[in-house]
Amino acid sequence: MKAVFMTGHGGNEVVSIAMRPKPVRQPGQVLIRMQAATLNQVDLYMRNSGAGITHQLPQIMGLDGAGIVEEVDEHERVLAPGQSVVLHPAIGCGRCEFCQRGEVVLCTGIQYLGEHRDGTLAEYVSVPAQNVFPMPAGLSFAEAAALGVNHLTAWRMLFTKAQLKPWETVLIFGIGGGVSLAALQLAKLAGAQAIVTSRDDSKLQRARLAGADHLINSSTQDVVKEVMARTQGRGVDVVIENVGAAVWSSAMKSLVRGGRLVTCGATSGDQPPADIRRIFIRQLQIFGSTLGNFDEFRDLLRLTERTGLRPVIDSEFPLEQAHAALSRLESGQQFGKIAIRIGEA
Amino acid sequence: MKAVFMTGHGGNEVVSIAMRPKPVRQPGQVLIRMQAATLNQVDLYMRNSGAGITHQLPQIMGLDGAGIVEEVDEHERVLAPGQSVVLHPAIGCGRCEFCQRGEVVLCTGIQYLGEHRDGTLAEYVSVPAQNVFPMPAGLSFAEAAALGVNHLTAWRMLFTKAQLKPWETVLIFGIGGGVSLAALQLAKLAGAQAIVTSRDDSKLQRARLAGADHLINSSTQDVVKEVMARTQGRGVDVVIENVGAAVWSSAMKSLVRGGRLVTCGATSGDQPPADIRRIFIRQLQIFGSTLGNFDEFRDLLRLTERTGLRPVIDSEFPLEQAHAALSRLESGQQFGKIAIRIGEA
Amino acid sequence: MKAVFMTGHGGNEVVSIAMRPKPVRQPGQVLIRMQAATLNQVDLYMRNSGAGITHQLPQIMGLDGAGIVEEVDEHERVLAPGQSVVLHPAIGCGRCEFCQRGEVVLCTGIQYLGEHRDGTLAEYVSVPAQNVFPMPAGLSFAEAAALGVNHLTAWRMLFTKAQLKPWETVLIFGIGGGVSLAALQLAKLAGAQAIVTSRDDSKLQRARLAGADHLINSSTQDVVKEVMARTQGRGVDVVIENVGAAVWSSAMKSLVRGGRLVTCGATSGDQPPADIRRIFIRQLQIFGSTLGNFDEFRDLLRLTERTGLRPVIDSEFPLEQAHAALSRLESGQQFGKIAIRIGEA
Amino acid sequence: MKAVFMTGHGGNEVVSIAMRPKPVRQPGQVLIRMQAATLNQVDLYMRNSGAGITHQLPQIMGLDGAGIVEEVDEHERVLAPGQSVVLHPAIGCGRCEFCQRGEVVLCTGIQYLGEHRDGTLAEYVSVPAQNVFPMPAGLSFAEAAALGVNHLTAWRMLFTKAQLKPWETVLIFGIGGGVSLAALQLAKLAGAQAIVTSRDDSKLQRARLAGADHLINSSTQDVVKEVMARTQGRGVDVVIENVGAAVWSSAMKSLVRGGRLVTCGATSGDQPPADIRRIFIRQLQIFGSTLGNFDEFRDLLRLTERTGLRPVIDSEFPLEQAHAALSRLESGQQFGKIAIRIGEA
Ligand SMILES: [Zn+2]
Ligand SMILES: [Zn+2]
Ligand SMILES: [Zn+2]
Ligand SMILES: [Zn+2]
Repeated sequence: MKAVFMTGHGGNEVVSIAMRPKPVRQPGQVLIRMQAATLNQVDLYMRNSGAGITHQLPQIMGLDGAGIVEEVDEHERVLAPGQSVVLHPAIGCGRCEFCQRGEVVLCTGIQYLGEHRDGTLAEYVSVPAQNVFPMPAGLSFAEAAALGVNHLTAWRMLFTKAQLKPWETVLIFGIGGGVSLAALQLAKLAGAQAIVTSRDDSKLQRARLAGADHLINSSTQDVVKEVMARTQGRGVDVVIENVGAAVWSSAMKSLVRGGRLVTCGATSGDQPPADIRRIFIRQLQIFGSTLGNFDEFRDLLRLTERTGLRPVIDSEFPLEQAHAALSRLESGQQFGKIAIRIGEA
Repeated sequence: MKAVFMTGHGGNEVVSIAMRPKPVRQPGQVLIRMQAATLNQVDLYMRNSGAGITHQLPQIMGLDGAGIVEEVDEHERVLAPGQSVVLHPAIGCGRCEFCQRGEVVLCTGIQYLGEHRDGTLAEYVSVPAQNVFPMPAGLSFAEAAALGVNHLTAWRMLFTKAQLKPWETVLIFGIGGGVSLAALQLAKLAGAQAIVTSRDDSKLQRARLAGADHLINSSTQDVVKEVMARTQGRGVDVVIENVGAAVWSSAMKSLVRGGRLVTCGATSGDQPPADIRRIFIRQLQIFGSTLGNFDEFRDLLRLTERTGLRPVIDSEFPLEQAHAALSRLESGQQFGKIAIRIGEA
Repeated sequence: MKAVFMTGHGGNEVVSIAMRPKPVRQPGQVLIRMQAATLNQVDLYMRNSGAGITHQLPQIMGLDGAGIVEEVDEHERVLAPGQSVVLHPAIGCGRCEFCQRGEVVLCTGIQYLGEHRDGTLAEYVSVPAQNVFPMPAGLSFAEAAALGVNHLTAWRMLFTKAQLKPWETVLIFGIGGGVSLAALQLAKLAGAQAIVTSRDDSKLQRARLAGADHLINSSTQDVVKEVMARTQGRGVDVVIENVGAAVWSSAMKSLVRGGRLVTCGATSGDQPPADIRRIFIRQLQIFGSTLGNFDEFRDLLRLTERTGLRPVIDSEFPLEQAHAALSRLESGQQFGKIAIRIGEA
Repeated sequence: MKAVFMTGHGGNEVVSIAMRPKPVRQPGQVLIRMQAATLNQVDLYMRNSGAGITHQLPQIMGLDGAGIVEEVDEHERVLAPGQSVVLHPAIGCGRCEFCQRGEVVLCTGIQYLGEHRDGTLAEYVSVPAQNVFPMPAGLSFAEAAALGVNHLTAWRMLFTKAQLKPWETVLIFGIGGGVSLAALQLAKLAGAQAIVTSRDDSKLQRARLAGADHLINSSTQDVVKEVMARTQGRGVDVVIENVGAAVWSSAMKSLVRGGRLVTCGATSGDQPPADIRRIFIRQLQIFGSTLGNFDEFRDLLRLTERTGLRPVIDSEFPLEQAHAALSRLESGQQFGKIAIRIGEA
């Protein structure tokens, strides 16, 4: 089958678009004919180095994806051949303390598609049935695929960790990023007020269209000052961020007493001063988060189907043009997800 | 009336033990004839500089305390003259968002006894009725007084913030300190397992008597390594600490995936590297905490009365020897609270 | 001052519209020149018998209300004369265990305006400052008044008790009632899906306009069957009801496994069979609820101001026509709140 | 292999103790050489009628059990042949919404050992690996087996549903029963105060030895009155009960305002009057509960190992004397669990 896979680490030159053996479905698994996937920052990380992630080359890239069921177990209760489905990218060991608790994202033996094992940029994928969910009606395959990483990550941050309420205000840093944009969409569906930041006015304007209540250009405005001005000096209830060092201090200072900061990344560095004194005097709460569990994904899909939530797609490329797609992701110019169409021809 | 009050900032020379006007009870307040108080680290901080704390000199020292009701409002429902009582040291504005929520410790206009207004090292104190609680049976006035800061702080950290469960393990840093020792006592009453650290073997041995399950000498042993050895490589569910920079990294590394760190101080510095990457990859949770609310104090007193919990008293001094008491606190040699006896004739 | 007060128990003949002494503000209170109030079912209950509610005649009627601050304490932090305000109707003792916890609605010495003491159908009311909140911008006095009982009750049921989530479905019985209609508005602001029932098609149609996703006419349709049809056989996550015996069984059978039923009334009887077996086999959760606390009211007002939420006003009457207003409430024909204009002329 | 199985429904005459085919381990399962099991009320229910439970005769009886691993998957991470293990009796479908959430006890396709499929009263059992847990050190096989139903049920009631705190008081009805006795042991390990009821003074005295703080003989004393006397008129925070109709009213009246009642059975009838008015006026909370999930079982085993918790064993019978064991259970005279020894030669 056709697939996009890494043969080494470096630039696009280590990314092959060629034939790989079609996976053989194991009992308990579902074989899926892929229709679309989207790129995530971690795809670049894997291509560039993959440091710290156990994996073997060659490895097919891609974390999220959507497709059509080709083959399932005979006794399967939920899925049937021909059904449109969307993938959850985390394959747990099923046996550790965390898997027992339904916390696959904490699994001590976790394997992510496209990180620890072959991913979704391929004509076929075979994964455990629990990773396969019926696709919400009304979405394209690309839109559905896009839910599996960014929206799922934002969901857990907002709803499981921060427990954002409809009457609260959330500050989202770096609205151009995939998780940030997903967080904006979800926060608005939940009735909350959203303040977003970006260094780029055109991204802020597009965030406005996606429902942002307040815009802050972090290259020309003082974020903390603006946040305070727009919250009557009170600060926000929740901060969602994955920028790290560059905004850590502003994030903390933007919080109301007792407020909650949720982080899922640190692209600008992960070792800013911790500011413990501020944490205890103002009784702040900090939560680390990554991806989301199966039940969170189910809830996300349920809300998506009912509300018509649609991930923002920046652009689409056929599988054969994966190099161009990766380059666009690398450029940082996109607003929304870069999708890969699979198996159309 | 006799009182211990600051006339400036510095050493014991700015601490006067002399006469001050007896407070006049206002409506809604309770006038209390004090019997005992205990010293807290913040007393030294106030004496030394009081930087960042709005206050006016001369000011009577002392945060916690216990005594006998002298005078109350006519319509008071709970308290009556002659009753033994213990004080909650936080006087809220009653009007801010946080007071409305019962979160006096977040009040934007908070005043602590002995910090922002006259404190408890005096023959009489007059405070709002909501700060006055019936004293648990079976405790001395000194023991009861000791509950008002350290135990209340530990209570909120363990039960409100970390939500420690009976089947969990808590790691408590610096077991010599008042909050740490209170946390140990409370964790054991709640059925949890406790690992404690100290640089001093004799403090560790006394912690053993107070119920500690595992002892780590942090000057001779590697805390993280020991924690892992005693938790089958898993890490602890909860860390309680107020040391700050010196232990921040060890604290984070001692936590199980998804574990909770609660901090209420940073005596060794408050700006260690934040280690954001560890926070989000392992989905750690960090909570700042200070003191505790009225309902938390009520629950603490209820548990105290039923279980016979008794704060550890290191030593007792009469009011007239407040200088000696402050010096002992400054020495760091105490194990438990340094109490001040008041009004014993 | 002019007021509407009860001189006995019975029909409108025991309701006087005449002069009563203007209240004298006590320290800690706010004197308010009332502008509007709305009627609640409990007004009829008080007029008809008031059985079980300690009160003294004559007593001014009315629980909720909005007006203008006339006089406050000198040191008041939040309110100033001339400010538009809305009232919280519960006056707690301030001293019991529940008041200490911020749970005024559980206070052992609770007094409600218009139930245990003079209410809001008067030109002036004097209440503790903590019962007085700045009025959200953009609402009329009547609309603001309407928030104080029905919306506050619905708020606590949905958000504090049921903890309704944006991806969940709530079933609301008897959409004509004030609490039910408020619950519908709030559930929709929170992003949830709402199924409503009524015996009256015209009320269902008006509920549709207020955002209801599914309508069930409970006199012509089988509620449980319809709920299951509209939830793919799953049942709803949350039921909100105050009808009691007549719907208890349907309510329980409409719930998903582990679902939550919240009740704040039992107008059709309060002793249906409990159906314990269903409760434990399906692990159902049942929560009783009444009114809401100060922090819940603050959050409600915050959401109201931002979103433009407006209580539905069925009709308005001047204070002098309180009899006609009570009769309309008694008729059960209203859709939304019956408001009383005060002090206009 | 030898087994105890039902060949029909009725008395002990339908219970055969004879040979049945040894189960063949499927992939993902663990084959266990059983050492002990204990009887549960549901065993009698299955024998007597099994009404409402889908099952096929002949069926091996027994829900809980402990034994030694005979055979596992090659790649199994946790278990190895020769290891002592204890069983969780609920086999979920793994595919429904509830299984996805880690809520196996709500599974729409649940199968309990000894109810919907062959159970534990046999020399060998083969179950999915996730149902098999390392046995806590220090317990006999019979004691370990006893944890799997009664203690697990009590655990979920106390800790997951009621969220019992160390400073709270729990009222446990019918202390002779297996779940009640387990609840008493667990509540005491968690530091809470326990009031227990029984109609039998000798059971009350044994409960005293197990840590009960207050004893009420419900045939000679008024439960509500006694509860109020022992809680200063306040009522208890939590009620744990499985008696149903006979105690429902007392249970509700024994609760503090806002208190929590958890039920897992209704042996005396399940249709008492619901008393909705009391529920909403006092804002009571009612939770249905059955058994417990895998993570709850893991936490229970963890606490058991550390604290030396030991289920009370009333008596032990060899497998061959299962009839006598069932008769003793039927007599209601036992205090604690009736154990069955298996495979002891
Ligand atoms: Zn795992
Ligand atoms: Zn305040
Ligand atoms: Zn009260
Ligand atoms: Zn299932």
